[in-house]
Amino acid sequence: MAETPTKSRYALSRESTHPFAETVQRAREELKSQGFGVLCEIDVQATLKEKLDLDGEPYLILGACNPQFAHKALAAEPQLGALLPCNVIVYEAEGRTHVAAVDAEQLLGIVGNPALTEIAAEVRSRLATVVERAAG
Amino acid sequence: MAETPTKSRYALSRESTHPFAETVQRAREELKSQGFGVLCEIDVQATLKEKLDLDGEPYLILGACNPQFAHKALAAEPQLGALLPCNVIVYEAEGRTHVAAVDAEQLLGIVGNPALTEIAAEVRSRLATVVERAAG
Repeated sequence: MAETPTKSRYALSRESTHPFAETVQRAREELKSQGFGVLCEIDVQATLKEKLDLDGEPYLILGACNPQFAHKALAAEPQLGALLPCNVIVYEAEGRTHVAAVDAEQLLGIVGNPALTEIAAEVRSRLATVVERAAG
Repeated sequence: MAETPTKSRYALSRESTHPFAETVQRAREELKSQGFGVLCEIDVQATLKEKLDLDGEPYLILGACNPQFAHKALAAEPQLGALLPCNVIVYEAEGRTHVAAVDAEQLLGIVGNPALTEIAAEVRSRLATVVERAAG
């Protein structure tokens, strides 16, 4: 059984046992199996190279969305799009690969709408599984 | 002078005096003039139609990023990509058009890293200007 991801104040993360590209591929597959589509992607390394000519390590943001949860959440909180989608990130730091997901309970906590509590807990749990399995 | 945007716990918003498509165009221009690129876009209305066959009102998420601020923030907080980019949303609700931006101080507040305080305040201020001018 995979170890529970490490928790920061806002992200669930693990060091991956796989190289960067393979971790990205695993994260995509696990997101799909947990019912999340990837609605947008940001290659942070490429963006910082293009805009600032900086040579950073690989860093990818996958903007993930479960349509059912997103629909329910937006119905309860119309401006919630300001905080969506929920991100999974894969990045290298000093040659090690990490995978992390936003902690949906912390993120949606700033909204202060009790109608989101159950959805936030479910999304958090699913993204924790994505992080575990992508890393493990 | 434009009115100060209304503040919720997590977003700065205003009702727009322009139709949806024009508000989107104005938001893009104001983001650019405040130094933000749009790194990703999510057409929420189209996504919910495609995935759930729901007929919702127009709703667009613009994922905005100022490369200098993003670089500094990521250097101070490597997992911050879990919360990026900063979103500006334009949406219709009951036929009225609204524009809003995430409140960067609230969003980055959950990180609890004092190195982000100054950047968060600057990003919040610039996005408030975007919302004012796009709506006004």
